[in-house]
Amino acid sequence: MIVVMQENATETQILAVTAKLKKLGFDVHMDRGVNRTVLGIIGDTHNFDQQNIEVEDGVSEVLRVTEPYKLAGRAFHAANTVITLGGLEIGGEEVVVMAGPCAVESENQIHRIAELVKQAGARVLRGGAFKPRSSPYSFQGLGKKGLEWLKQAAKAHGLLSVSEVMDTNTIDLVARHADILQIGARNMQNFALLKEVGKVANPVMLKRGLAATIEELLMAAEYIMSSGNPNVILCERGIRTFETYTRNTMDISAIPVVKKKSHLPMFADPSHGTGKRDKVLPMARAAVAAGADGLIIEVHHEPEKALSDGPQSIYPEQFSVLMEELRTIAWAIGRHIGPKGPIREGD
Amino acid sequence: MIVVMQENATETQILAVTAKLKKLGFDVHMDRGVNRTVLGIIGDTHNFDQQNIEVEDGVSEVLRVTEPYKLAGRAFHAANTVITLGGLEIGGEEVVVMAGPCAVESENQIHRIAELVKQAGARVLRGGAFKPRSSPYSFQGLGKKGLEWLKQAAKAHGLLSVSEVMDTNTIDLVARHADILQIGARNMQNFALLKEVGKVANPVMLKRGLAATIEELLMAAEYIMSSGNPNVILCERGIRTFETYTRNTMDISAIPVVKKKSHLPMFADPSHGTGKRDKVLPMARAAVAAGADGLIIEVHHEPEKALSDGPQSIYPEQFSVLMEELRTIAWAIGRHIGPKGPIREGD
Amino acid sequence: MIVVMQENATETQILAVTAKLKKLGFDVHMDRGVNRTVLGIIGDTHNFDQQNIEVEDGVSEVLRVTEPYKLAGRAFHAANTVITLGGLEIGGEEVVVMAGPCAVESENQIHRIAELVKQAGARVLRGGAFKPRSSPYSFQGLGKKGLEWLKQAAKAHGLLSVSEVMDTNTIDLVARHADILQIGARNMQNFALLKEVGKVANPVMLKRGLAATIEELLMAAEYIMSSGNPNVILCERGIRTFETYTRNTMDISAIPVVKKKSHLPMFADPSHGTGKRDKVLPMARAAVAAGADGLIIEVHHEPEKALSDGPQSIYPEQFSVLMEELRTIAWAIGRHIGPKGPIREGD
Amino acid sequence: MIVVMQENATETQILAVTAKLKKLGFDVHMDRGVNRTVLGIIGDTHNFDQQNIEVEDGVSEVLRVTEPYKLAGRAFHAANTVITLGGLEIGGEEVVVMAGPCAVESENQIHRIAELVKQAGARVLRGGAFKPRSSPYSFQGLGKKGLEWLKQAAKAHGLLSVSEVMDTNTIDLVARHADILQIGARNMQNFALLKEVGKVANPVMLKRGLAATIEELLMAAEYIMSSGNPNVILCERGIRTFETYTRNTMDISAIPVVKKKSHLPMFADPSHGTGKRDKVLPMARAAVAAGADGLIIEVHHEPEKALSDGPQSIYPEQFSVLMEELRTIAWAIGRHIGPKGPIREGD
Repeated sequence: MIVVMQENATETQILAVTAKLKKLGFDVHMDRGVNRTVLGIIGDTHNFDQQNIEVEDGVSEVLRVTEPYKLAGRAFHAANTVITLGGLEIGGEEVVVMAGPCAVESENQIHRIAELVKQAGARVLRGGAFKPRSSPYSFQGLGKKGLEWLKQAAKAHGLLSVSEVMDTNTIDLVARHADILQIGARNMQNFALLKEVGKVANPVMLKRGLAATIEELLMAAEYIMSSGNPNVILCERGIRTFETYTRNTMDISAIPVVKKKSHLPMFADPSHGTGKRDKVLPMARAAVAAGADGLIIEVHHEPEKALSDGPQSIYPEQFSVLMEELRTIAWAIGRHIGPKGPIREGD
Repeated sequence: MIVVMQENATETQILAVTAKLKKLGFDVHMDRGVNRTVLGIIGDTHNFDQQNIEVEDGVSEVLRVTEPYKLAGRAFHAANTVITLGGLEIGGEEVVVMAGPCAVESENQIHRIAELVKQAGARVLRGGAFKPRSSPYSFQGLGKKGLEWLKQAAKAHGLLSVSEVMDTNTIDLVARHADILQIGARNMQNFALLKEVGKVANPVMLKRGLAATIEELLMAAEYIMSSGNPNVILCERGIRTFETYTRNTMDISAIPVVKKKSHLPMFADPSHGTGKRDKVLPMARAAVAAGADGLIIEVHHEPEKALSDGPQSIYPEQFSVLMEELRTIAWAIGRHIGPKGPIREGD
Repeated sequence: MIVVMQENATETQILAVTAKLKKLGFDVHMDRGVNRTVLGIIGDTHNFDQQNIEVEDGVSEVLRVTEPYKLAGRAFHAANTVITLGGLEIGGEEVVVMAGPCAVESENQIHRIAELVKQAGARVLRGGAFKPRSSPYSFQGLGKKGLEWLKQAAKAHGLLSVSEVMDTNTIDLVARHADILQIGARNMQNFALLKEVGKVANPVMLKRGLAATIEELLMAAEYIMSSGNPNVILCERGIRTFETYTRNTMDISAIPVVKKKSHLPMFADPSHGTGKRDKVLPMARAAVAAGADGLIIEVHHEPEKALSDGPQSIYPEQFSVLMEELRTIAWAIGRHIGPKGPIREGD
Repeated sequence: MIVVMQENATETQILAVTAKLKKLGFDVHMDRGVNRTVLGIIGDTHNFDQQNIEVEDGVSEVLRVTEPYKLAGRAFHAANTVITLGGLEIGGEEVVVMAGPCAVESENQIHRIAELVKQAGARVLRGGAFKPRSSPYSFQGLGKKGLEWLKQAAKAHGLLSVSEVMDTNTIDLVARHADILQIGARNMQNFALLKEVGKVANPVMLKRGLAATIEELLMAAEYIMSSGNPNVILCERGIRTFETYTRNTMDISAIPVVKKKSHLPMFADPSHGTGKRDKVLPMARAAVAAGADGLIIEVHHEPEKALSDGPQSIYPEQFSVLMEELRTIAWAIGRHIGPKGPIREGD
């Protein structure tokens, strides 16, 4: 951390800041320039709130030269985190595809879709039982019954399962039924929830908030990890910008940025990232081409009857075509989807 | 609601959409243009999810001509909501100022600040006991002890109190100690929390999320109101934009927009809206000039020692000067701060 | 175009609006609902400014159901525009790669880079002679001399050339030396410039402004096309958002959106879109995977000595690797880079 | 300027960076921390492009501690710039109001409006003759004829005049007719135009671009000033954000920020900043309350017949009411509008 003093800072002010830093346990390197003095803070500043120094008289700016996250960052954990779950490796060489309906709607629906996405090569079945809806008058999910059907459908078709948790009171319930817990974008900074999912054994898929910087996403992961759960999967799902044609602007560049800054697996959600069915396929391809470790995609056999997110759910036939295209793209950058092996001509 | 069909929509598609709408209980007015057909949906569409029609074949767009919120909107509630609480009217002619520290830090601290802000004309004492912090390593608040001290300090100085609630499990605790519950920006779409604060008797101050549109803010208020609590105070506190000089961009225009769309009181938080002490005063003045029903401001007698938000907390002397300026500005637009009456020269 | 009247609009107001529309030459379909009346405007509204009706008493909203652009849109020009230039087809099945330095710096530099990018498979040589720089103290380009060297280098290596035009006074000069004119992001709404490049024979690459919506990009193309030049190439190069890690946020989803809305070729510029060398490769791959018709990439043999944009220029060796990866990705979606043909194993 | 080396930077890399900086004429202070080395650059870095160092091996980041602008900044010009023009002081104690139609439409129109705004207390008459319109099919202004009428109307009513210049070819024409030249938001980074208006004697009102940071606004002013024209008036007119209710989000906080960073007068344009008539008044009041040195407002006696911007033009009666409110608000913060003096009760 570097403290830049104001040009007209007095000697007394400089010494006061230095004294305060030393009292806080840091070493200080003083660098006196022609126009201003700069102080280098030596020591572990991860847990230190820079505001404590910014408010001192004579201080112009405090600049961080290390990231504020530690457990989520690559600096102290250079190798990729690979989460092994039921024989599946998340964050390894395989690009893992999660697919399924936005919400579990009936026993028959979730079984039918599980069968279809399994055939096309998906590894994890998604399905919401508690749905965060912007209107209190919209379908809010089936709750426990939905979780039970999700669990059965996943098991019946040899898939793992992922489902959203919205409140500290239902973490245990969701954790008993779904292999992976999902924290939605609107809850990315629900700190009470982050702390509690940090105490369960299931991996957590943490979606980036609509207005969250990449640093804030990693700090939210830090909350979960510092509570004891190292298995966090990050997920880009679109940020809010001035452009209105797409519901959100999917920040594909966040994928290589996160891969550089963090060792955690980085996924992408092209369904929520675009909100439009015909944009899901190109954006899914783009995400894999940019290096995503996996995708989570909404697939529905009857999207026009879906109780939520119908317009962004793709048809099973589209999903099959997409999976074929993704196999080739993954291969172009040394990765694979499903069983490893060369692409054959005519594939 | 208006359904715009595609230019090449077939007669069969048009009739199918019409039939679906009628089955859902709506009347339909059909308007056949040269290039395309437009359907007017007649009936109460507040609880209707437009996606149900968007996914039909031949549909180009579904346009809402009424807002999706009902309880929070002016359409069915033309008069301003005035919340009366301990003799104070919120949302009336008086511009109500809430002030105090970011967090309750000690019994002495909250009493000292309560005294100072009361002298300057504040009506409500703010003070957090549960703090949402972006880093898990930052001060997280004093919890129950902080609430007790807040309650005592407010009572001792004839002030009401406001404090943040972060989790469904602590709503009762906060509601017993603070007159007004606050939902922070990061929880604006924590729907589980919104539903629960809709069940308590205390008024709720709901802060706009960093990436929330005004419509989403009003929909979040709708969650609280549809659970039974009509006393919602809205609050602008800055949105996230590309500008980096200020921590957020305070959207002052949201004040007149909300006042037109909704009957609920609309406040502004210039402390979080700017994140910088020397910007709090001009932005507080701007908010009142634009028609805000009140302000919530961070004041600290020793901001350099504050455990959180020190750099954006103003000094008690600054607060006193500000209150004088605000009195004149409120008067310029037919409102008042504290006791009503003409501005005297030399004020 | 649809005119939504206010709920309390009077009969007189409704008739006044109808009369005004008829006087303007439109047919009007009136649709009287229970709560409000809606007017459908029949006729060609492309050249009609909707503000003329919005200001009438009793009008709530005017909604466009057709796009405001005509020449640039697919509605009246369903087939893709393919620009044929010196044997190259832009907007066809081939994904066309333009590459070269940010600025022409010396005769030797541009020849050396031309040779390298040609070997790797580029088709067009880029190189700026007039540089828009945010600081007046930065290198502003070599002007005419730079254009001459660019032209010679392109010719010597069998490449076409593209260079930026910044001012109406230098259009002729640039048009004599470069095959394709480029309008930079900061000039996307420099309407005087757009009108003038609409009068030359060279194709124009029009870059999306940092804060421009896709509709505004297409309206800017409409300016050029309505002045007589149908050969416009659009280009996504990053928009401004709250995220600060990358210089801009490259909106990959703009690629499929533009391809749907417009018949014009759609390119992507991953160099300016990210501003960081190590992000150029993944974003270039993502753009092609999402369906871009081409790329424009900054390549420099000595980026550390570049007079501008060094940090985002990639090395020739990186460019060669990228071109190989792109060949496979293009093939995955039925397109090709350079000579058409199947991907061989071991490629 | 501070160079932060990477944690694993080698001694050779550190010395190479140091040598390069010294060769460039700077002094270097080296600060060796436990984890990394930090280099302080001593000397005038205003004209230095930091990319030259960022690309060096072993460099992690280059941080500016001084602003990149010099002529526009307060660091070397502490006192406010006050522009004296025809007896009017811009940037002094008086809050200067410019008003008039979006575009000059007829001789009668501009004279009528000049009379009305003069009566209410405006000092400068606005009126466009060259209009930047997003559609090529919209009214583009009357050109020379419009400028002549503007000049006559301003003179006839004892007002100064301001009009927009869009292209280098028409600067002389506009400069002969209007006292103040305006650069519109879309041309804020039209560097060719900035350089040329830097050579005329008229003051220049420079509007902030829709996606421009405050730093970029000041750098654009630097272009004009470094070409020889010190009389630049800055103007906030709304930035582009995700919020769609208002056309732009008017960044009121930019006013105090610019006043701190720069000595130049800072104005606000609530008409373009909001795009809606009923939002112009509250935002005009907010701007003055926040410390703006002046306003530019669109006023039209028949907005429903205006050829452009009718919906955001206010009526003369609204303008009169506004001016009265502004007088009181200005007085609250020690400034005045029109003749200086105390506010009387009953004003």
